[in-house]
Amino acid sequence: MGLMSEALSQVLIFLAAFIGIAFALLQWYLVSKVKISASGDDHRIGDRLIEEDDQEVGIDSLEAVAKCAEIQNAISVGATSFLFTQYKYLGVFTIVFAVVIFLFLGSVNSFSTKSQACIYNKGEQCKPALANAVFTTVAFLLGALTSVLSGFLGMKIATYANARTTLEARKGVGKAFVTAFRSGAVMGFLLAANGLLVLYISINVFKLYYGDDWEGLYESITGYGLGGSSMALFGRVGGGIYTKAADVGADLVGKIEQNIPEDDPRNPAVIADNVGDNVGDIAGMGSDLFGSYAESSCAALFVASISSFGINHDFSAMSYPLIISAMGIVVCLITTLFATDFFEVKDVREIEPSLKRQLLISTVLMTAGIAIVTFVALPSKFTIFDFGDQKVVKNWHIFFCVAIGLWAGLAIGYTTEYYTSNAYSPVRDVADSCRTGAATNVIFGLALGYNSVILPIFSIAIAIYVSFSLAAMYGVAVAALGMLSTISTGLAIDAYGPISDNAGGIAEMAGMSHTIRERTDALDAAGNTTAAIGKGFAIGSAALVSLALFGAFASRAEIKAVDVLTPKVFIGLIVGAMLPYWFSAMTMKSVGKAALKMVEEVRRQFRTIPGLIEGTGKPDYATCVKISTDASLKEMIPPGALVILSPLIAGTFFGVETLAGLLAGALVSGVQVAISASNTGGAWDNAKKYIEAGASDHAKSLGPKGSEAHKAAVIGDTVGDPLKDTSGPSLNILIKLMAVESLVFAPFFAAHGGLLFKWF
Amino acid sequence: MGLMSEALSQVLIFLAAFIGIAFALLQWYLVSKVKISASGDDHRIGDRLIEEDDQEVGIDSLEAVAKCAEIQNAISVGATSFLFTQYKYLGVFTIVFAVVIFLFLGSVNSFSTKSQACIYNKGEQCKPALANAVFTTVAFLLGALTSVLSGFLGMKIATYANARTTLEARKGVGKAFVTAFRSGAVMGFLLAANGLLVLYISINVFKLYYGDDWEGLYESITGYGLGGSSMALFGRVGGGIYTKAADVGADLVGKIEQNIPEDDPRNPAVIADNVGDNVGDIAGMGSDLFGSYAESSCAALFVASISSFGINHDFSAMSYPLIISAMGIVVCLITTLFATDFFEVKDVREIEPSLKRQLLISTVLMTAGIAIVTFVALPSKFTIFDFGDQKVVKNWHIFFCVAIGLWAGLAIGYTTEYYTSNAYSPVRDVADSCRTGAATNVIFGLALGYNSVILPIFSIAIAIYVSFSLAAMYGVAVAALGMLSTISTGLAIDAYGPISDNAGGIAEMAGMSHTIRERTDALDAAGNTTAAIGKGFAIGSAALVSLALFGAFASRAEIKAVDVLTPKVFIGLIVGAMLPYWFSAMTMKSVGKAALKMVEEVRRQFRTIPGLIEGTGKPDYATCVKISTDASLKEMIPPGALVILSPLIAGTFFGVETLAGLLAGALVSGVQVAISASNTGGAWDNAKKYIEAGASDHAKSLGPKGSEAHKAAVIGDTVGDPLKDTSGPSLNILIKLMAVESLVFAPFFAAHGGLLFKWF
Repeated sequence: MGLMSEALSQVLIFLAAFIGIAFALLQWYLVSKVKISASGDDHRIGDRLIEEDDQEVGIDSLEAVAKCAEIQNAISVGATSFLFTQYKYLGVFTIVFAVVIFLFLGSVNSFSTKSQACIYNKGEQCKPALANAVFTTVAFLLGALTSVLSGFLGMKIATYANARTTLEARKGVGKAFVTAFRSGAVMGFLLAANGLLVLYISINVFKLYYGDDWEGLYESITGYGLGGSSMALFGRVGGGIYTKAADVGADLVGKIEQNIPEDDPRNPAVIADNVGDNVGDIAGMGSDLFGSYAESSCAALFVASISSFGINHDFSAMSYPLIISAMGIVVCLITTLFATDFFEVKDVREIEPSLKRQLLISTVLMTAGIAIVTFVALPSKFTIFDFGDQKVVKNWHIFFCVAIGLWAGLAIGYTTEYYTSNAYSPVRDVADSCRTGAATNVIFGLALGYNSVILPIFSIAIAIYVSFSLAAMYGVAVAALGMLSTISTGLAIDAYGPISDNAGGIAEMAGMSHTIRERTDALDAAGNTTAAIGKGFAIGSAALVSLALFGAFASRAEIKAVDVLTPKVFIGLIVGAMLPYWFSAMTMKSVGKAALKMVEEVRRQFRTIPGLIEGTGKPDYATCVKISTDASLKEMIPPGALVILSPLIAGTFFGVETLAGLLAGALVSGVQVAISASNTGGAWDNAKKYIEAGASDHAKSLGPKGSEAHKAAVIGDTVGDPLKDTSGPSLNILIKLMAVESLVFAPFFAAHGGLLFKWF
Repeated sequence: MGLMSEALSQVLIFLAAFIGIAFALLQWYLVSKVKISASGDDHRIGDRLIEEDDQEVGIDSLEAVAKCAEIQNAISVGATSFLFTQYKYLGVFTIVFAVVIFLFLGSVNSFSTKSQACIYNKGEQCKPALANAVFTTVAFLLGALTSVLSGFLGMKIATYANARTTLEARKGVGKAFVTAFRSGAVMGFLLAANGLLVLYISINVFKLYYGDDWEGLYESITGYGLGGSSMALFGRVGGGIYTKAADVGADLVGKIEQNIPEDDPRNPAVIADNVGDNVGDIAGMGSDLFGSYAESSCAALFVASISSFGINHDFSAMSYPLIISAMGIVVCLITTLFATDFFEVKDVREIEPSLKRQLLISTVLMTAGIAIVTFVALPSKFTIFDFGDQKVVKNWHIFFCVAIGLWAGLAIGYTTEYYTSNAYSPVRDVADSCRTGAATNVIFGLALGYNSVILPIFSIAIAIYVSFSLAAMYGVAVAALGMLSTISTGLAIDAYGPISDNAGGIAEMAGMSHTIRERTDALDAAGNTTAAIGKGFAIGSAALVSLALFGAFASRAEIKAVDVLTPKVFIGLIVGAMLPYWFSAMTMKSVGKAALKMVEEVRRQFRTIPGLIEGTGKPDYATCVKISTDASLKEMIPPGALVILSPLIAGTFFGVETLAGLLAGALVSGVQVAISASNTGGAWDNAKKYIEAGASDHAKSLGPKGSEAHKAAVIGDTVGDPLKDTSGPSLNILIKLMAVESLVFAPFFAAHGGLLFKWF
C-alpha cells in the first residue's frame, strides 16, 4: 500500500478540481474588467488608461469601441448558433450510438441479468454483462456531455475575450497579451478541472453499484473516453471544415482578386471566418484535448483495475492517474502566474519567449510534482497486467514513465516551434523559395512538413520504449497522462492563438489604427506557432493514448500477441495505414468544395451589391455563414462514419486480430500524416507573415505585401489551411477514437467477432 | 514430384530467355528501319511515305530532319555521359558495400572454413558461412551489374527511338505510336530475359560448388536481389533529381516567366530536361523493376529452398518461380503483337485504349499460362516453410496465389488510370478547381492522391490475405512474381511514356509543324497515364515483394512472431513508418534546391546572352546539364545512406525484432506515400494537358494556354514533378531494398545483432 489513505486521495482530487474551477473563474473575472461598451463606462476606461499608460492609441475613437462591441456580438451569436445547430446533429448521433453500445454490449451474454465469473479476478463473481452495457452507455453519455460542455465554454470565453484583447491592444502589447492569455487559461483550467471532476464523481457513483467488482467498474468507465472522443471527432471535423471553407473562400477573393486586406469588413466571408476560428480552433480543439485526457485516464484505470491494485482494492493507488491530473492543475496554476503576474511582456519580441517559457516552467515543476505524487500514492512494489502475465513494477519505474511522457511532450513542442516559427531557418527557407513562385513554395513546404516528423517520432518512440519496457501498457497510459498533465497550460497557450487571431480581425473590421493592427498581428504570429505546438502536443499525446488504449483493448479481447507475420494482422495493418489517407482525402475535398461555393458567393456579392468595394454598400454576412454551416454539417458525416464504422466492421467481420492490426496501422501512419500536415500548414502561414512583417533585410527583399513572392506565399498559406486546421488535427481523433471504440466494444468482438472467418 | 523433368525445365527457361532477347532485337531492328539522317535515305523515306499514306506533314523540311538528328545526338550524348559519371560513383559504392557484405557475413562464424550444421535440413552438413559470404558477394555484384545494364540498355534504345518517333509522327499518329511502343518493348523484353538468364546461370554455376546444400545456395543467391535494388536506388533517386531539377527549372523560367512553350529550344535547360527523361524515367525505372523482379524471385527461391522442394531436391519445382517468368516472356510476346501487328491505331483517341488493352490481354493470357505451368511444374501436394512449421499446400493453391497477384496488378493499373487520366472525372475536377487558382488546384490534387490510395491498398490487402493464407510467405512471393510476370508488357507501355515525351520535345525543338506537335502531345498524354500505371505496378509489386522478403528475413533470422505488443517491435514499427517521410523530405528538398539553381542559371542566360529570347542567340545547354548532373550526384547520397544504413543500424544495435518492426512500418506507410505521390503528380500533369488540349467545352472554358486557370494548372504540375518522378517512385526501392538487405544480413543479425540491448 502507498502512504496515502483513501480518504486523503479523495479529498485531494476534489480539492484540486475545485481550485482549478475557482482559478478559471478568477481569470474570467479579470478579463471581464475590460469593458467593451462605449456607453457609461467610457469615462472610467479613459481614466484608467491615462493613469496607467501613455501608449494608448485610438482612444479618441469611441465609434471604434462601439464597432468592436458590435462585431464581437456578431461573432459570438454566429458561433453560438452554429454550435447549437451542430448539437442537434450530435444529439441524434449520440442517442443512436448509445443504443448501439447498449445492444452490442448487452448481447455479449444474451442480455442475461445473472452474475458472471470474473475474467481476471479468478474465482470471484462479477456483475452481469448487461450491467456493464448499461453503465458503459451512461459513461458514454457523460463523456459526450462533458466534451460538448468543454468546447462550448471555450468558445464562450474566446468570443468574450477577442474584442477585449483588441481594446487592450490600444494600451500596449503587454496588456493585450495578458487578456488573451488569461482567457486561454479560463478554458484550460475549466476543461481540466471539469474533466477530472465528472470522471471522479462517475467512478464514485458507479462504485455504489459495482462494489468490489472493479473489473466491471473500470470497464464501464471506458465509455467516458468514447463519449469524449466521438464528440471531439465531429467538433474537429465539422469545425475544421467550417472555419477553413470561410477562411480559404475569404482569402481567395478578398486578398488575391480584390486586393483588400485580410479581415476587411467589406469581405462578406469575414464574419464566417472569425466565427470559424472559435468553433474550429477553440471548441473543436477543446473537445479534442478533453478526449485525449479522458481516454488516457480510462486506459490507465482499466489496466490498473486488472493489475494488483485492482485485485487488492487499493483505491489510492488505483486513483494514481487522477491524482497526477490533480497535481497538474496545481502546477499549471503556478505556471500561469509566471505569464500574467511574475513577468510582464513589454515588447512584441517577448511574446513568443514568454509562451515558450510556460512550457518549460510547467514541465520542470510537474516533474517534481510527479515525483511527490508517485512516492506518496503508489506502493513501492506491485504487479501490472502484461498481456496474460503479471509484471513486477516498482514505484520509481512509474515515475520515469510519467516523466518521460511529460518531457517527450516538451521535446515535441520545441521541435514544432523550430519548424513553424519564422524565427528559425526552416520557415525562412520556405519564405525564400517564394522568390521562384508558388510551386517551389509548395515543394519546400511539403518537404518541411515531412522533415518535421523525424524528431517527434523519435521522441514518441523513446517515450514508448521506456514506459512500455518498465510497466507495459500501464506505463504507456501514464506516459500519455504525463504528457497531458500540463494540459491547462497547453490549452491556455493554444487557445491564445485563435483569440489573438480574432482580436486582429476585430481591429481591422473596426477600422482601428495601424499600430493596433501591428500589435495584434504580432500576437497572432506567436499564436500560429503556439497553435502548432498545441497540435504537436495533441498528436503526441494521441499517439501514446492510442497505444495505451490499443493495449487495453488487446488485454480485454484476450489477445496474447499481435503478430504481423499472420495474414489477418497484416491486412489490418496495411488497411489501417491507409485510413488516414482516406480520411484526409474526404476532409480536404470537403474544404475545397465548400471553399469553391464560398468563393462564388463572395464574388457574387462583390459583383451585385453596389458600393461594396468602395465601402458604402453593406455585405451580406449571413449567407456566407450559412454556406459554412451547411457545408460543415453535411460534410462531417462521411469522415465521421469512416472513423466510427471501421473498427466496428473490422471487429465484427474480421475479428480482433485484424482489428488489432488496423489500430496499429492507423496509429503509426496517422501520426506521421497528422504531424506533417499541421507543421506544413503552420510553416506556410508564418512564411507569409514573415514576408508581410518585413522585420529583416531578407524579409524586406521578399516583400512587401502584393509582391510576387508574397502572392506565392499566400497560395502556400491557403493550401496549408485545410492541412493544418482540418485534416491534420482531425487525425488525432481518428487514431484515438478507433482505439477507444475497440476497447469499449472489445467484450462484444471477443464474444461474437470475426463473422466472416467463421462463415468460411 | 511434378510432371516436368529437370532437363526439360532447364531447357525451357533458357529457351524463353533467348526468345525474349531475340524478340527484343527484332523490335530494335524494326525501329532502326526509320532513318533519321537527312542525306541519302531521304528519297526512300519520301517514296515510302507517298506509297503508304497521304497524311504526311512537314516532309519538305529536310532541315527539320537534320535538326532532329542533331537534337537526338545531344540527348543521347548527355544521357550516356551522365550515366557513365554516375557509374563511377556507383562503382565505388558497390566495391565498398561488397566488402561490407563479405565482412559482415564472413564474421557470422568467425571466418571459419569448416562446414557447419544445416539449419533447416536437420542432421545434414552445410557449407561454411564463409562460403556463403563469398557467394553472396558475387551474387550481389552480378545483380548490380545486371541492374546497371538493364537501365543502360533502356536508355540507349529510348534515346535511339525518340527522334524516330517524331519523324514517324509526320506519317500519322499510328506510325509514331508503333515506333514508340516497339522501343519500349525492346527494353521490356531485354530486361526480363536478361534478368532471368543471369539469375538462372548463376544458380547453375553456384550449384557446382554447393551441390546438395540448397540452403546455402539460395541464401547466397539473395545477394542478386540486393545488388539489383541498390543500383536501382541510386538510379531512381539520382535520375529523379536530375530530371526534375531540369524540368522544374525549365518550366519556372520558360513557361511562367518568359511565356515560351515547353521544350522550346531557346530554353537553356531544355536539353537537360530531355536527358532527364531518359536517365530518370527510363534508366531509373528499368533498374527499379529489374530489382523487383530479382527480389521476388530470390524471395520465392529462398522460401522454397527451406520447404519440401528444397529438402527433396526437386529441381523443377524449385525452379517454379523462374518458369513463371519464362512463361511471362512468351505471353508478353504474343500480347505485343496485338499492339504492333493485329490492330492499328488510326486516331489519337485510340492510343490510350490500345495501351490499356495490352494490360488486359497480357493478364488474361498469363492466367492460362500460370495454370499450365503450375500443374506441370509443381507436385500436387508439398509442404512450405511457415515460420517454424511446415504448411501443407496443394498446387492449385499456388495457382491462386500467382493469379491473384497478377489480377491485383491489373486492378491497381486500372485504378491508377482512373485517377490520372483526363478522360475521367477526378482529373477533370482538379482541372476545374484551377478556376479559383493554384491553391485550390493543389488542395484538390492532394486530396485526389490520398483518395487514389484506397482501392490499390484493398487490392494489395486481398492479394496478401489470399496468398499468405494459402501458402505463407511462398504464396506472397509468387503473388509478387505473378504481378511481375507481365513485366515485359508493363515496361513496354511504361517506357513508351518518356519516349513520347522526348519525341514531343524534339518536334518542338526542331521546329516541326503544329500538327506533328499535336500528335506527339497526344502520345505524351497517354504516356503520362501509362507512366502512372507503371508506377502503380512498381509500387504494388514492391509491397508484395517486400512482404515476401520480410517473411524470408523473419524465417532466416528465426523469428517466430513479430508481436506489435512488445516495445522492441513497436518502436521499430513507428520509426519505420516515419522513414518514407524522412526520405521524401530529403529528395523533395534536393529537387527544390537544384531547381532553384537551375532557375538562376536559366535567368542568367536569358539576361546575359544577347538575342536568346528572339531566337538569334544560342543558349548554353552544357551548363544546365552540369547543374543537374552535379546536383543529382551530390544529393543522391544522403537519401541513399538513409535507406542503406537504417536496417544495418536497427539490426546491429537493436536486434532482429526491432528491425522486423521497422520493415513492417516502412512497408505499410511507404506504400501509401508512394501511391499518393505518384498519382497526385500524374493527375496534375494531365489536368494541365486537359486544359491545354481544350478538347471539350468544359476544357475550353478553362483554357487556353496562358489563361489564369492554365497558370494555376502549371503550378500544380510543377509541384507534382518531384512527387511523381523523384520521391514517389524512389519509395518503392526504399521498402524493397531495406527488406532484401535485412534478408541478406539476417545471418549476421541473428548471430551478433542487438548490441544495445546486450550492453544494457
